[in-house]
Amino acid sequence: MSIRPLDIKRVTITDGFWSAKRALVRKEVIPYQWEILNDRIPEAEASYCMHNFKAAAALNKRAVEQGSAYEAPKFTYRGFAVFPETREDAKDDEFYGFVFQDSDFYKWIEAVGYTLATNPDSLLEETADKAIDIVCAAQLPNGYLDTYYIINGMDRSFTDLRDHHELYCLGHLIEGAVAYYEATGKDKLLNAAKRYADYVSDKFGTEEGKIHGYPGHEITEMALFRLYDLTHEERYRKLAEYFIDERGKSPNYFEGEHPDMKGKPDYYHQAHMPVRQQTEAVGHAVRAVYLYSGMADMALKSGDASLKSACQKLWNSIVNTKLYITGGIGATHLGESFSFPYDLPNDTAYSETCAAIGLVFFARRMLCLDPDSKYADIMELALYNTVLAGMALDGKSFFYVNPLEVIPEACEKDERKMHIKPVRQKWFGCACCPPNITRLISSLGQYIFAEDQNTLYTNLYIGSETVKNVGGKNVKVSVMSGLPNSGNVSISVTGAAGTDFVLALRLPAWTAGNYKVTGADDLITEIRNGYIFCSGFAADTCICLEFDMTAKVIAADEKVSEDAGKVAIMRGPVVYCAEEADNGPALREIRIKTPVNITENVTDEFGAEAIKLVVKASRVKMEGSKIPSTSLYKTFEGFSSEDVYLTLIPYHLWANRGEGEMSVYVGVEW
Amino acid sequence: MSIRPLDIKRVTITDGFWSAKRALVRKEVIPYQWEILNDRIPEAEASYCMHNFKAAAALNKRAVEQGSAYEAPKFTYRGFAVFPETREDAKDDEFYGFVFQDSDFYKWIEAVGYTLATNPDSLLEETADKAIDIVCAAQLPNGYLDTYYIINGMDRSFTDLRDHHELYCLGHLIEGAVAYYEATGKDKLLNAAKRYADYVSDKFGTEEGKIHGYPGHEITEMALFRLYDLTHEERYRKLAEYFIDERGKSPNYFEGEHPDMKGKPDYYHQAHMPVRQQTEAVGHAVRAVYLYSGMADMALKSGDASLKSACQKLWNSIVNTKLYITGGIGATHLGESFSFPYDLPNDTAYSETCAAIGLVFFARRMLCLDPDSKYADIMELALYNTVLAGMALDGKSFFYVNPLEVIPEACEKDERKMHIKPVRQKWFGCACCPPNITRLISSLGQYIFAEDQNTLYTNLYIGSETVKNVGGKNVKVSVMSGLPNSGNVSISVTGAAGTDFVLALRLPAWTAGNYKVTGADDLITEIRNGYIFCSGFAADTCICLEFDMTAKVIAADEKVSEDAGKVAIMRGPVVYCAEEADNGPALREIRIKTPVNITENVTDEFGAEAIKLVVKASRVKMEGSKIPSTSLYKTFEGFSSEDVYLTLIPYHLWANRGEGEMSVYVGVEW
Repeated sequence: MSIRPLDIKRVTITDGFWSAKRALVRKEVIPYQWEILNDRIPEAEASYCMHNFKAAAALNKRAVEQGSAYEAPKFTYRGFAVFPETREDAKDDEFYGFVFQDSDFYKWIEAVGYTLATNPDSLLEETADKAIDIVCAAQLPNGYLDTYYIINGMDRSFTDLRDHHELYCLGHLIEGAVAYYEATGKDKLLNAAKRYADYVSDKFGTEEGKIHGYPGHEITEMALFRLYDLTHEERYRKLAEYFIDERGKSPNYFEGEHPDMKGKPDYYHQAHMPVRQQTEAVGHAVRAVYLYSGMADMALKSGDASLKSACQKLWNSIVNTKLYITGGIGATHLGESFSFPYDLPNDTAYSETCAAIGLVFFARRMLCLDPDSKYADIMELALYNTVLAGMALDGKSFFYVNPLEVIPEACEKDERKMHIKPVRQKWFGCACCPPNITRLISSLGQYIFAEDQNTLYTNLYIGSETVKNVGGKNVKVSVMSGLPNSGNVSISVTGAAGTDFVLALRLPAWTAGNYKVTGADDLITEIRNGYIFCSGFAADTCICLEFDMTAKVIAADEKVSEDAGKVAIMRGPVVYCAEEADNGPALREIRIKTPVNITENVTDEFGAEAIKLVVKASRVKMEGSKIPSTSLYKTFEGFSSEDVYLTLIPYHLWANRGEGEMSVYVGVEW
Repeated sequence: MSIRPLDIKRVTITDGFWSAKRALVRKEVIPYQWEILNDRIPEAEASYCMHNFKAAAALNKRAVEQGSAYEAPKFTYRGFAVFPETREDAKDDEFYGFVFQDSDFYKWIEAVGYTLATNPDSLLEETADKAIDIVCAAQLPNGYLDTYYIINGMDRSFTDLRDHHELYCLGHLIEGAVAYYEATGKDKLLNAAKRYADYVSDKFGTEEGKIHGYPGHEITEMALFRLYDLTHEERYRKLAEYFIDERGKSPNYFEGEHPDMKGKPDYYHQAHMPVRQQTEAVGHAVRAVYLYSGMADMALKSGDASLKSACQKLWNSIVNTKLYITGGIGATHLGESFSFPYDLPNDTAYSETCAAIGLVFFARRMLCLDPDSKYADIMELALYNTVLAGMALDGKSFFYVNPLEVIPEACEKDERKMHIKPVRQKWFGCACCPPNITRLISSLGQYIFAEDQNTLYTNLYIGSETVKNVGGKNVKVSVMSGLPNSGNVSISVTGAAGTDFVLALRLPAWTAGNYKVTGADDLITEIRNGYIFCSGFAADTCICLEFDMTAKVIAADEKVSEDAGKVAIMRGPVVYCAEEADNGPALREIRIKTPVNITENVTDEFGAEAIKLVVKASRVKMEGSKIPSTSLYKTFEGFSSEDVYLTLIPYHLWANRGEGEMSVYVGVEW
């Protein structure tokens, strides 16, 4: 039994909290990103993304004018990332940026598609159409489309699958093209995507003469399933399945390209063993959850039990041993990777924004594969904490890395922490995170509900409306939600009388069973897999849910050595943190008093209303007399303690008030 | 006013604790190292040190036979470290190992010299003489002696001063040659050292046509001062002064060799500014303290006040902001360097054994320059903790890196901690630490006393005897010491009656003023700069010192964020640590109860008698109920606590009972 997400066109988001974020994405981020793609923001790193498409298009055009097929020059390796000295030095016919720079446009057009699907905007659509013309003009007559090789030399295309992201770019192209087609009905980019996918499908596979490789950075797998869903072309499904089945077979394909990898288990690319045998989430965290998402898609479509079981094991590996309380994953910046189980350092955390987004992707697919609210819990956790923290309140700066503890001086001076930025950055040369946030927030409608024939699942309590056709009748469901500030949710169902409509209301884990349902007395209700299944609608109905949002004190498992003796505070799905702005520096000196006493205060310090928590605590110092010969050490003579009130703010709001210390975990008195 | 160390021949060590270590060095380590230098230990990494000298000697011999001066081939760069596939593949005429491999012999011969000075051994001396013959045969007729360039091509010699250690090798050659000469009176190696120093002295200097560079790895500076002390040849002193004065001038000399360094402050090599302007200890820790030692030597000889002041500032920078409680320095493995002030992580510490040894060098020189017991305190701290921890009890394995906290699983799986080894290693390809320990322990006699005309300073309380001539009369001083187990020291002075002899007895900082002196009633005593100055000896006298060795609870300065809420225990100069072997795993759960209750237990578990400490503590766990959807987190419902006895052992004894957790700092109840 599985369920499926709703097309975003079917979901109208009316939520106060999220609508503001979505408006920000629409009005600020998408236009800003377009300027970035065109290198028109002087103070941000140049992207060269549209530059590269134009350069490739010009090469194509010249070939056509000369009456010949385009012939690229002999390949010369120009590195994984090439930038000119200054923007002015950029040559019209050269490739710049990272090898995967094309994908920046694809992510942008994907977000544009989602936005247009729900918020038509003819000016934006016109810009997008013109951009698509440029991109399509870069495609080779045979369907190949990756500007790095078109410009630098096609003779080496597909010879470095491990590092060179051609298949990754195909994946993002598909995602963008499908989104744009679904929003606008325009198929120009979709056709380009299909042609590139056809080209790849001809080249790759188990058959003799074909390349037996697979993407070094996954995403193509889930994208191809999506293309299959739209087109029902078997070859896209087959190609996706091939990529998943082939991965991790011995000998490792990438060893052929990179002999220095010989004999080393390739955890980084999740190619250390066939995917069905994998039980531990390892390697580059974004790659991993993108792969697992593709595996879940395949399991959904094929009913392959061994693949489903692998997905569940990998899910469990993440949520039970490698998940930050903020919903972040990828504990080490070395390889932007998962660390070993229970290694979840706070101050050197990587916890990349994109990885949390990938976890949302994976969670939604697991939820569809195995409908259980536990997946929605983690999806919500990642969304309300790490994903949201990735973007500043004004939508103009972004976090790539999401630490759980920051001392700004250490980020500046400690090379082990230099990946940690104490404030959000304008843009990144390797700009994966900002456009990934954009495409997620603009496609939020896909995550709120899911359905099967008669049942509508509410997975995220976000104010929204949808209509579901049940037995020929349109049932309208409207959700009003006070989240994340209050736990009051009301859901009105109209038109369900006399149908087999079932409403499955998720019971968030964070309520710990403390919730109240009113208005459902006339319905048949059954609690199963973390949902209240309501059926027997005899009239238009309004169900009110009251979820307990009392702040909770959370401790990590004792195996997480970094968190010993410390606690974090959550309120509903929102994780809190302490900032220097409220509490002064040296947060490590603060100890929460037990029994923990927490007061809630509404604040509008962050633009919209938010809840601050105030906790009785003490600031504790170790007292003693300096030892002679060094002023670094003293004889310990006990603690001095001063009563303080510790103020906590939602983690997703941190670093919006300048640079300072931050900590999710705080010591606790015992 | 300055003082000077005693020639080791004048000091007979009779100490129970140290004699055993010294016997180990003599009987185990020195012979073992000789086998290593000759690649005869199959299970240890091959050194190729003597191989290289032989290869260079053969090239020389061939040239002489052909009646021509040796001409090296055109230089071909073979890397910073070259090793053959297997020992059998090593070719007779090729260089192997690190560019500084020659120095392994020099460190060994230095230790041999010290050993022979106090413990004649004709067999060892014969081996050494033969080895010296090989080494001297490698020297070019012009005096140059560095096998890397002799074998690989002399045309590039002195073209990579930053990385290629030719001047570093000169420094170690001098140290070894002087030690061997002073012990045996044999001057063959000394003459080789002088000839190489002469060659360098001709090539380097401020004069036009000379190379204006200086060593990329310091040591030559202090070595040249030593050579000057022995030979009174002005040019050695001038060369040393030139190296110190030239360092850090702008533009940085190394930029010429390595244009990529242009404009970047060269902290790593302490060449970011002229040495007299330096106030913060930075860069590679071993290089730093070797440089500072040379600077102190120069200040001593020249009376240069600005240099003395720089030395004092750098000393203060170390001991007040960058010193581990174990006497270790160099907090980060990135560049094996000092980190920023107060950044003293326990579990990722570098704290290289060689750096602690270098700190001992620097401390002894500061003590001579500015006689104050505070320098001896730090010298003793480094010696009894990090230096001693560097060698296993059986003298057969060594620590390069000396962490203050170890969880073995993390060392294996966490790339940020892979420099940390939970047990000592047999030998290292880059074998700086083991021979450095050897030369320090075998020259311990230099560190116990110091003197000026009439005064003998006791700086380390190590059982020993010496004779000092005062006004033509021999005053014999014998020290008996219970350290490190007991604080009872007795000092007998004979033959001082009627002389101006002054005995300066160091008052260790760790007594915190709690000590008793008996037997000095008839003397004139004055306490100054951390010493009791005793004079007016009218008869043979025995002074008994009783230093309080009560274990003390130590806390780090509150700026050291890693140690907040934790304490360490010291007893006398000995720092203690908790091991899994005594306390089980998860040491982080243990909290010392306050007021701290410590019991001492004598143990012979480590061969010789040692003191274990037992501390009342509790093992604290955070209790709560698992949150659904992830088993990593739970609601915090308070602590459960179990009374335990925490057993602590001297830090220098850790990791002698197999692999397990270790921690110097332990949480404390408040």
